Amino acid sequence: MKSTLDVAKIRKDFPQLSTTVNDKPLVYLDNAATTLKPQVVIDEMTKHLSQDVANVHRGVHTLSEMGTRAFEETRVTVQHLINAAHVHEVIYTKGTTDGINLLANSFGEQYLKAGDEILLSQMEHHSNIVPWQMIAEKKGAKVVMIPINDAGEISLDEYKKLLTPKTKIVSVVHTSNTLGTTNPVKEMAALAHANGSKFALDAAQSIAHQKVDVQDLDCDFMVFSAHKIYGPNGLGILYGKEDLLNAMPPYQGGGAMISEVTFEKTTYNILPNKFEAGTPAIAEVIAFKSAIDYLLSIGLDAVNFYETELLEYATSELKKISGVRLIGEAKEKSGVLSFVIDGVHPHDLGTLLDKQGVAIRTGHHCTQPLMKRFGITACARASFTFYNTKEDVDTFIAAIKKAKEFLL
Amino acid sequence: MKSTLDVAKIRKDFPQLSTTVNDKPLVYLDNAATTLKPQVVIDEMTKHLSQDVANVHRGVHTLSEMGTRAFEETRVTVQHLINAAHVHEVIYTKGTTDGINLLANSFGEQYLKAGDEILLSQMEHHSNIVPWQMIAEKKGAKVVMIPINDAGEISLDEYKKLLTPKTKIVSVVHTSNTLGTTNPVKEMAALAHANGSKFALDAAQSIAHQKVDVQDLDCDFMVFSAHKIYGPNGLGILYGKEDLLNAMPPYQGGGAMISEVTFEKTTYNILPNKFEAGTPAIAEVIAFKSAIDYLLSIGLDAVNFYETELLEYATSELKKISGVRLIGEAKEKSGVLSFVIDGVHPHDLGTLLDKQGVAIRTGHHCTQPLMKRFGITACARASFTFYNTKEDVDTFIAAIKKAKEFLL
Repeated sequence: MKSTLDVAKIRKDFPQLSTTVNDKPLVYLDNAATTLKPQVVIDEMTKHLSQDVANVHRGVHTLSEMGTRAFEETRVTVQHLINAAHVHEVIYTKGTTDGINLLANSFGEQYLKAGDEILLSQMEHHSNIVPWQMIAEKKGAKVVMIPINDAGEISLDEYKKLLTPKTKIVSVVHTSNTLGTTNPVKEMAALAHANGSKFALDAAQSIAHQKVDVQDLDCDFMVFSAHKIYGPNGLGILYGKEDLLNAMPPYQGGGAMISEVTFEKTTYNILPNKFEAGTPAIAEVIAFKSAIDYLLSIGLDAVNFYETELLEYATSELKKISGVRLIGEAKEKSGVLSFVIDGVHPHDLGTLLDKQGVAIRTGHHCTQPLMKRFGITACARASFTFYNTKEDVDTFIAAIKKAKEFLL
Repeated sequence: MKSTLDVAKIRKDFPQLSTTVNDKPLVYLDNAATTLKPQVVIDEMTKHLSQDVANVHRGVHTLSEMGTRAFEETRVTVQHLINAAHVHEVIYTKGTTDGINLLANSFGEQYLKAGDEILLSQMEHHSNIVPWQMIAEKKGAKVVMIPINDAGEISLDEYKKLLTPKTKIVSVVHTSNTLGTTNPVKEMAALAHANGSKFALDAAQSIAHQKVDVQDLDCDFMVFSAHKIYGPNGLGILYGKEDLLNAMPPYQGGGAMISEVTFEKTTYNILPNKFEAGTPAIAEVIAFKSAIDYLLSIGLDAVNFYETELLEYATSELKKISGVRLIGEAKEKSGVLSFVIDGVHPHDLGTLLDKQGVAIRTGHHCTQPLMKRFGITACARASFTFYNTKEDVDTFIAAIKKAKEFLL
């Protein structure tokens, strides 16, 4: 099988790929931090801001009604993207972090009590650790860590041992933003459920690269950000099973989430409004539909096949460079290539690559417990998506060699 | 004195003002719900999304550094707009509602205990009621209402009587989204402080229409939304005094807000990052600077003078229509004209005005306690800003007359 993507054509859809950085053509390998935007998304934002501005939900005038319709159409598009059973299981948030905070607080208020345990993996992003620590502290519950092996994989045997009657919820990343590891989340969800625990999925790094089917995976909750799937900033999605979301209290109070307000007693709206207080990111929600439609027009299977090939090529080329140590060598990987080089500080490497137009990320990648696991404080990370090419990889590899010569 | 605004020129800066609705030129009188966007804001969004996309704070590459710089420049611009003493007193939020939820939770966790009281006025938006009710319930504190008179004004005498040793915080709207009343918040803040209480200001409806100087008003906290001051959606500002914000715990956990994360113990970042977990609304923050710069280039004093004149004209014209009852006749008013008409349902009126291209809002305006105070369940609201004209008012008045003829 060979990739069917017309990447040269695709690249023309992303205007930023034609720009230069430090007088060099941009090689953008920071897709795990945020993805570039296709022209259709930019056009939709511009159109909305130029012609269609109105607040949603609360107006009877045409602009407001049109806006509300478009706003809700995106919700249906997201429902289909993730195969949610009901459209009202799709909640708009500010982003993945906001979604996990909503979940941790609202789930925690309803279901957590002193002595309960929350199970997280050692490879979680801080956004999937700190909110749980905060609610655990409030409720007297405990955060428990699922360890990972040297390849950067969760051991299912270890995981099984940690599932106990105390485990109220397991919250795990689908694809690690640092290791690239794609976890066996369908098996993990099944094991959690067999134990009577709920299962939450952080799909921030997987949603743009593979089909994430919440019914097939049978996750109880799932979060991701629009800006990592070619959409606008300031927007994310929380998916939750209807019965759980119905049982959980609202997270934020304000307009749209209420049924009736008096100073004595306030009653709350039904899903999804219950969890969507205040004026939402209207233009962003509406433009997000274009991002999803665009991605689906290319096809997630085709994207996944192409990106897997590209990652394999980049990995094999990088391994040829002496002194390189990969961080994350799981069997199941996607999109992310993290590494350190003997005697080279990642920050210096990043700076020198940038001089050559290559944008990578360096640092702890908001995964300090994982850094500790690998005995490092920082690493370099190149992250790929379908608009990257073998030529990008070659430029990246050549830039590393040049940087090494300069630094060592 | 006469207005110095060149409104014809200003109107050309807002592309949406040249559009039609139901084949009629748009007369946009829903500015209290959201404001239209000037071309400079749209251009900045488009530029960012086309050329400058990158995540902020965490990268060493040029795009990320440029983005971070622009992102922080907006913070300085906001600091100057509101005259905050320190730039790190400016916190980016998702909007006014998010800001009040952050405030209520974080302030509440630190300072509220059983029996304490939170003082709110009867004219508050649900977003300045429900978050306080939620934290009050958690802490065993009580929400107390400052009543308003028939003109829609807070009585300072009533307010003084309600300030007791139990009052930990007063949270009041600057300009009411329903009544248009501008409250004597400087006096109210001074009285709160004399009582040992903190004072929070909801400036969502005032920030675009007058100078809101947090040091002059001496408010401890202040919130507003970018989309109501000609900026993008999905973004708001929480201002807080440094010492208070420093003493308060973080609201959301995640990336950027931490100093160090381990599974055993997490420590938090300094201001403003402590309150800004996760990837922010980057494009929106950057474009928001253009909105503020644009408004300041026109001048808040000139805007305020013009809008006051326009509101007076609209009020006097509206009063000439028989059967009209104004909701809100405070001496100090700004931008908002709410009313009911005998025998006409506000919803029907809104629908008929829309047919004539006039966008107003009808409903409870997220102020149900206020509706109850005036013995109604809904009203019609026209809200004005500096790009509206006397001709807009005339069209609005003619449309009401036509609707009345049709309905009565």
